[in-house]
Amino acid sequence: MADVNGVKRPRVIIVGAGFGGIHAAKALAGKDVDVTIIDCNNYHLFQPLLYQVSTAVLAENEIAYPVRAFFRQKKNIDFFLGRVTDFDPQQKRVITDAGELSYDYLIVAAGSTTNYFGMDSVAKHAFSMKTLNESVAIRNHILNIFEQASKESDVQKRRELLTFVCVGGGPTGVEEAGAISELIYSVMAKEYHHMDFSEVDVKLIEGTDRILPMMPKSLRDEALQVLRGKKVDVRLETQVMNYDGSELTFKGGSVVKTRTVIWAAGVKAVPVMAKLGAPLDRAGRVIVRKTLQVPGCSDVYAIGDSACFMQDDRPLATIAPVATQQAEICVQNILHTISGRPLQLFSYHDVGSMATIGCGDAVMFRGIIKSKGFIAWMLWMVVHLMRLAGTRTNMLVILKWLWNFLSGDRLGRIITQHL
Amino acid sequence: MADVNGVKRPRVIIVGAGFGGIHAAKALAGKDVDVTIIDCNNYHLFQPLLYQVSTAVLAENEIAYPVRAFFRQKKNIDFFLGRVTDFDPQQKRVITDAGELSYDYLIVAAGSTTNYFGMDSVAKHAFSMKTLNESVAIRNHILNIFEQASKESDVQKRRELLTFVCVGGGPTGVEEAGAISELIYSVMAKEYHHMDFSEVDVKLIEGTDRILPMMPKSLRDEALQVLRGKKVDVRLETQVMNYDGSELTFKGGSVVKTRTVIWAAGVKAVPVMAKLGAPLDRAGRVIVRKTLQVPGCSDVYAIGDSACFMQDDRPLATIAPVATQQAEICVQNILHTISGRPLQLFSYHDVGSMATIGCGDAVMFRGIIKSKGFIAWMLWMVVHLMRLAGTRTNMLVILKWLWNFLSGDRLGRIITQHL
Repeated sequence: MADVNGVKRPRVIIVGAGFGGIHAAKALAGKDVDVTIIDCNNYHLFQPLLYQVSTAVLAENEIAYPVRAFFRQKKNIDFFLGRVTDFDPQQKRVITDAGELSYDYLIVAAGSTTNYFGMDSVAKHAFSMKTLNESVAIRNHILNIFEQASKESDVQKRRELLTFVCVGGGPTGVEEAGAISELIYSVMAKEYHHMDFSEVDVKLIEGTDRILPMMPKSLRDEALQVLRGKKVDVRLETQVMNYDGSELTFKGGSVVKTRTVIWAAGVKAVPVMAKLGAPLDRAGRVIVRKTLQVPGCSDVYAIGDSACFMQDDRPLATIAPVATQQAEICVQNILHTISGRPLQLFSYHDVGSMATIGCGDAVMFRGIIKSKGFIAWMLWMVVHLMRLAGTRTNMLVILKWLWNFLSGDRLGRIITQHL
Repeated sequence: MADVNGVKRPRVIIVGAGFGGIHAAKALAGKDVDVTIIDCNNYHLFQPLLYQVSTAVLAENEIAYPVRAFFRQKKNIDFFLGRVTDFDPQQKRVITDAGELSYDYLIVAAGSTTNYFGMDSVAKHAFSMKTLNESVAIRNHILNIFEQASKESDVQKRRELLTFVCVGGGPTGVEEAGAISELIYSVMAKEYHHMDFSEVDVKLIEGTDRILPMMPKSLRDEALQVLRGKKVDVRLETQVMNYDGSELTFKGGSVVKTRTVIWAAGVKAVPVMAKLGAPLDRAGRVIVRKTLQVPGCSDVYAIGDSACFMQDDRPLATIAPVATQQAEICVQNILHTISGRPLQLFSYHDVGSMATIGCGDAVMFRGIIKSKGFIAWMLWMVVHLMRLAGTRTNMLVILKWLWNFLSGDRLGRIITQHL
């Protein structure tokens, strides 16, 4: 605690430098508190664009922004690189692999991790896409697979290599399948002069009867049609049961031979949430109060993917707008507590949802407004550019998107790790 | 071999996708030969800017360009991802870790690797900077070290962490030391609100009595003065004897405690050159004929860092202009051989040399022309942009350099691998 004029300033710890954590820190910047952000990475990651890194549209540094760079002028915000391993609400401490820190107020915005729903074989062999390194691993894998296929003379082995499966019909799976299709048919096809691209097979697997379930039927149908137009084999009502690295088995016993399964079928809160000792939902998220406080610890708040907040009898979705809106309220509640004012109750204001389904094509939905095609794609770009961190990043990303759109090229196809 | 109208087209294999290899392939594009480029990476690497990746100025994809992207429209140029492990000049085969390939003509442009001059301890503990991954490793290391130092309460340990040593007074060492100094004092210093940057120590170690030995004395003095102005502790006539990862020992016994030694004191040809069975110089390079042919194998050429070419009684330097000029001549000689014309002799036309010594400052030298400061830096930028592959890369790099220059920021400070 800093000691200014004999008065100790309250110390706020924020766990997680995602949308919620960074937004909370910005709201606390310049206030009469000392803030430390803890994260196991030194950067804020713009997760909605991970799929573009995995398909060589954007580079790592364009969706990752150094945490300290946000707070150059904000002397009351500090950063601590470390992975939280435990919470000690009694002693008001956070325990990390790089040391312990004490707090007066704690904001847990620790995000989520991939949920394999107990399928260990899938967890072991499939790719997930929640972190920058996972995304880069997918990119390296796809590029390596093509080099390998270009040398493979056995047609069956080649087909197995050239089959790419995305699992999960939410925005991530849809966007990834669309982006892989474009990478292969629009970019790679120009460069492998001796390869037969009719041997390529891109699949999108969804367990329920619909993709993009948050969208109205007309937009779901549109997305399905666009994906199929991009030669993506969309299979609905298909449940994954097992994957051994070479054979993907579905409920009912049918099998697809593939070396590439990208799992985007579910998320859950990071496991350390259980250490708070508070009630959790099925996805491991803390069931918070209307004030966003963690039950039983009034000085601890959970927001974003770390929190299960019931509104209209349903838990809020794990999306960035929920996290940032919650960050505002939890910061207000901490400042109100310090100044002795009453706490506020959180309520989410829906900002709609959107998903790209390829270069120049998207669907979006907000209230009664529906949009699709090029206009929706332009809106998608504007919204994402506005949320991306920093002017330089915006310029770079606009330049790259324009370049990709006009040239049909993706120059980020650099293999940094070999098979 | 492709068979067109009953005539077999000669097959040319190019080992290495560096300046020499890519230049040779471009010269062979559209000609009546089938070309395969072999490289252990799927990209051409712009090595002169590796130091900018290691100091978070540029990102990986801005200095690495997919080999296949060069030859989209050139159907007679193919690429093979693999590491050459042996040559078989009798059977006219190249052996790689991913299979064997036959050739009619072979161009070896395999580049160089770091030379530790037999000091195993240094090889084990120091960083080198010849590959993209090595460069990224340095960046991760420097960024990790700062996070570690920000948590270290012991002043001696902190000073050891904050001591950064570059070894080698050539362009690479000079540029790296200057770039590290700027990264630390101009960028990091703004973001570590509680760190004392007077504890930082950046050193440049050189064994001889001069840095940038290819430059005239006035420019050498200028470079020395600029580096020292950037708080780089330049030590001349200082030989490294040992480095155990924590103590760097010099001839005479003096010791510097540091966790970071970046070795830029020498290069040698890649070891596989010895498998050609031809005479090598001390740096493992094939001593080629005036035609660039490898003695004893008239259908094999060695160029760039793979070749030792004597001109004016001195071996040519291992720099890009030598490799590209040699690529032209060896391609001409192969085409001349095919069409039954006489071979040409190589002679290097000096294009001068240049080195940046910081943002906005450089030295350059060509014939009787000397330049330094901002003008030389602008020239340095123009020359490097012209050589960089592709319009998109040029635009990105200009944008980044401008941004760094105007904002004093380096947003590529993303830790992708932890200590």
